[in-house]
Amino acid sequence: MKVGHNPMGLFEYNANKELIVRLNYDADLIQSITELARSKGVEAGSFTAIGALKRAKLGYYDQKNHEYREMKIDSPHEMASCMGNISLKDGEPFPHVHVVLADEMGNTKAGHLLEGIVFAAEVHLRQLEGPRLERKYDELTGLSLWNME
Amino acid sequence: MKVGHNPMGLFEYNANKELIVRLNYDADLIQSITELARSKGVEAGSFTAIGALKRAKLGYYDQKNHEYREMKIDSPHEMASCMGNISLKDGEPFPHVHVVLADEMGNTKAGHLLEGIVFAAEVHLRQLEGPRLERKYDELTGLSLWNME
Amino acid sequence: MKVGHNPMGLFEYNANKELIVRLNYDADLIQSITELARSKGVEAGSFTAIGALKRAKLGYYDQKNHEYREMKIDSPHEMASCMGNISLKDGEPFPHVHVVLADEMGNTKAGHLLEGIVFAAEVHLRQLEGPRLERKYDELTGLSLWNME
Repeated sequence: MKVGHNPMGLFEYNANKELIVRLNYDADLIQSITELARSKGVEAGSFTAIGALKRAKLGYYDQKNHEYREMKIDSPHEMASCMGNISLKDGEPFPHVHVVLADEMGNTKAGHLLEGIVFAAEVHLRQLEGPRLERKYDELTGLSLWNME
Repeated sequence: MKVGHNPMGLFEYNANKELIVRLNYDADLIQSITELARSKGVEAGSFTAIGALKRAKLGYYDQKNHEYREMKIDSPHEMASCMGNISLKDGEPFPHVHVVLADEMGNTKAGHLLEGIVFAAEVHLRQLEGPRLERKYDELTGLSLWNME
Repeated sequence: MKVGHNPMGLFEYNANKELIVRLNYDADLIQSITELARSKGVEAGSFTAIGALKRAKLGYYDQKNHEYREMKIDSPHEMASCMGNISLKDGEPFPHVHVVLADEMGNTKAGHLLEGIVFAAEVHLRQLEGPRLERKYDELTGLSLWNME
């Protein structure tokens, strides 16, 4: 396994529509973004979101053992930051989302968002037009990374 | 009060100007963004910002009792993340802003930004052109959410 | 030293290319963004990124004594949030980057990113076309801020 197996990759896009979206109360953020991308034909894009979640499941990727650890967040939190991108995985729109949550004292929990039940969420999604952006298994990291070769 | 009272709402916009802004030392971030939106005629938009604050006031929304709790942050912090959107509330440009602050040890406080006194702040605001984006009281959450019906 | 020495400054840009970039394993995020900007001729821009870092160095700016304090983060973290901008400093593309990192418990460290060794990182960079955006020493803060006079 050699370092540099996945060198910097770069694709150029043009901006298409800018979507402003209010997610459904009690919906899962990840599922909602997936459905949104599917229904609007978004195959490449990037988004930010703010709002609040009723509960969530976060992931931390163990870089050594190549596995996700999951953390349940079972109480309401502000979604202080949420950013992600959309690309294709197995030919379907796939959102990759990271989040910073804040509790009633302003204290934070953060990581990869696996599940997030919406109390209120305001999303700004930028649809990009250009090369096909597809994920492919990367041996070096054990992750599905963008195939840009 | 039925779940699904506020289903997913979606508006499509075209990007207009991209504004790069340096906020005034000692100004309040929320007021500055409001004035900026008003002076440039931004009625829908989204932004990110980085920099540092001299002090701040954060909010956490109590999802059960439908009220904001306020937290005073009385010391200088890095503004590690700041993202927000602009829409209309009572016919006027209204910024909705979330922030992650970091102290000298890298420890964080985060939430809804109610007030933030600027030490230095660099803003990137994207002006959007399209449907009128207006907030309206939502009974289910007790919040002013986007009216997208 | 008078307050208001650096009042709000505003430049207007048009969006150019949207760059989607996968950073190189083991590369430094700051250096990678600098090289990217140089190679693509990006003199003004803004970006977000998500992924994971193997280690990092964070900065906190002491607003009173006008000096950066550095914090070494010597273990793998999720990059829960990363946002930054590109402008010119001494005539060269210069990235200003803030980050929120999360450990295996979801606990966070955040601040100004001085160095970040990439495990995996997905960047969305928006190239902006318009006025020359150059940093200049600002006496009031001791920082290199945008010269917008």
